[in-house]
Amino acid sequence: MKFKTISFDRGKLKLLDQNALPLRQKYVICRGEKEVFAAIKDMTVRGAPLIGITAAFGVVLSALNAGEKDRRKFLNKIYRSIDMLKKARPTAVNLFWALERMKSVLNSNLQSAPADIKQKLIFEAERILKEDEEICLRIGRNGAALIRDGDSILVHCNAGALATGGIGTALGIIYCAKSEGKKFTIHADETRPRLQGARLTCWELGKEGLDPILNCDTTAAVLMREGRVKKIFVGADRVALNGDTANKIGTYNLAVLAHYHKVPFYVAAPVSTIDFKIKSGREIPIEERDKNEVVKLTGKFVAPKNVKVYSPAFDVTPNELITAIITEKGIIKPPFATKIKNQKAKCDGEMSC
Amino acid sequence: MKFKTISFDRGKLKLLDQNALPLRQKYVICRGEKEVFAAIKDMTVRGAPLIGITAAFGVVLSALNAGEKDRRKFLNKIYRSIDMLKKARPTAVNLFWALERMKSVLNSNLQSAPADIKQKLIFEAERILKEDEEICLRIGRNGAALIRDGDSILVHCNAGALATGGIGTALGIIYCAKSEGKKFTIHADETRPRLQGARLTCWELGKEGLDPILNCDTTAAVLMREGRVKKIFVGADRVALNGDTANKIGTYNLAVLAHYHKVPFYVAAPVSTIDFKIKSGREIPIEERDKNEVVKLTGKFVAPKNVKVYSPAFDVTPNELITAIITEKGIIKPPFATKIKNQKAKCDGEMSC
Repeated sequence: MKFKTISFDRGKLKLLDQNALPLRQKYVICRGEKEVFAAIKDMTVRGAPLIGITAAFGVVLSALNAGEKDRRKFLNKIYRSIDMLKKARPTAVNLFWALERMKSVLNSNLQSAPADIKQKLIFEAERILKEDEEICLRIGRNGAALIRDGDSILVHCNAGALATGGIGTALGIIYCAKSEGKKFTIHADETRPRLQGARLTCWELGKEGLDPILNCDTTAAVLMREGRVKKIFVGADRVALNGDTANKIGTYNLAVLAHYHKVPFYVAAPVSTIDFKIKSGREIPIEERDKNEVVKLTGKFVAPKNVKVYSPAFDVTPNELITAIITEKGIIKPPFATKIKNQKAKCDGEMSC
Repeated sequence: MKFKTISFDRGKLKLLDQNALPLRQKYVICRGEKEVFAAIKDMTVRGAPLIGITAAFGVVLSALNAGEKDRRKFLNKIYRSIDMLKKARPTAVNLFWALERMKSVLNSNLQSAPADIKQKLIFEAERILKEDEEICLRIGRNGAALIRDGDSILVHCNAGALATGGIGTALGIIYCAKSEGKKFTIHADETRPRLQGARLTCWELGKEGLDPILNCDTTAAVLMREGRVKKIFVGADRVALNGDTANKIGTYNLAVLAHYHKVPFYVAAPVSTIDFKIKSGREIPIEERDKNEVVKLTGKFVAPKNVKVYSPAFDVTPNELITAIITEKGIIKPPFATKIKNQKAKCDGEMSC
């Protein structure tokens, strides 16, 4: 990639400030867990896999800043940080998954010296980041097999290098198809309210030499009806055991439109986005966003100040509207329930799941 | 209504500036046909019925400013203004319909004195305005019969008093239901790119004592799935003989979503919005808007400057997705083709059609 979304070096976590894009490419440096919490909460970083990675480094920073003299205080501080970081955002399961991995390292090393624990936490967070790079590549290669020369693809929100530690999930597929020499057209939903499609996806596709066509979310059905869009790829914030998928608000809109127009609708996500604890999408908590994201644009009111707003950040697409789920392990087709369980069984024997 | 969208007095056309809403309630005064053309083109006024009414007064202003000495020059100037005004926007058929009415008055009075012609044109434009007030009321009453106590309704764009010479079409129905004492919830799509739902619909509903809940267009499917929306009412820019309906971009999205969720989908429009010359929606020209409406918000870029954009201003909802079309003559249910023809036959015998 021609830009770096996240990097960690000598006690400093460097994050590309996604709230400043596309106008400015600037970085935020986090030196403590509270700054990491704020960066996730205010969406300096976003995207389910990236939220998980960032939180893991939040645990590292908490440990690095903790006094080593009193072991109990040292450990308690890190556990408290893990609990705090879990509250940054509610929907993306990768946050909890990554924090659980960090907690496991802590649990397994309660007797080690604080300096050793710090090293082990750094190692684990860096491993989560490196694994995500590899996972993105595998998702990309698996999904690229679904793209044909001459295809026209629609993406929603940003499921790219800005949402992960690697080349992205849905956009990773696009980059892989491009590197395989395939020619295709790519359309991007602007994705209200926070415009991740306009601000982030168009920015990163442009950086990588692609030439996206931006549209308002209201235009998606016309794109399909006019044959301008033949396939849809989206990311995911949490997938239930039955395949129900929580993703950025508007994803469910798109899935219904795709169903009506007989356009294949693909979800791309790492296995870490599957919540093996929940049977269906009904159990996924959905974050509601601040009304100011809807009533104000670039700081100016575009609606009456006192108007009521309903603004869920995510929606749940029921499994029956999903053509396939693309993970690093392969392409899962319906019926999802059994196959997702099988994938879990496979994963249980591996380090990276 | 607690505000006036359009008024004409002593050679001046006063238009509520819809580009300044909701922050400022200011007026634009037009004294000539070129100012009227600009007001339609830059969307100081918008909404199919209002565009027609405004254009009619544009013809009046052209006549009032024409020299009376040379009758041929006088008439030619008005004919040229009619041709110019036709080019202001391409989709709303009411523009052409209103200008045709003004042209007919001219054609029938070629031998009259210019001063008489001016009076007749003023009379005709004022009649179009007054008829529209009455038509809105009738649409409102007809449509209000479809609203039950406890209903929850979603509207798209602005089909209200800001889009007509009266209380509106889709919103006219809302106002009538309210005045009949019905209790219901009303949701408004923000309607990208120009946010007429956020800027105009929420503003006028608030002015009239209603308490709308605003949502991004991406949230419409969730509203239906969660049972928060039970009925949808939209306006129209042009209806074909078979019932296919061009309306603000995103209307077709909504109609597909409504179909999937079994939510009734109603179009409200005056008979003047029916284009009896075209058999289907395929014949409706669709305006494309400037890319800056998508890539810039309140003057600031929210997407890379050079990104390509696809931004049709309207879409066409096929008749099979429409539950009923509500006009001033009654409620037309499918199959539309025959019934719309019958309505035309009825109208041919009346002044106002």
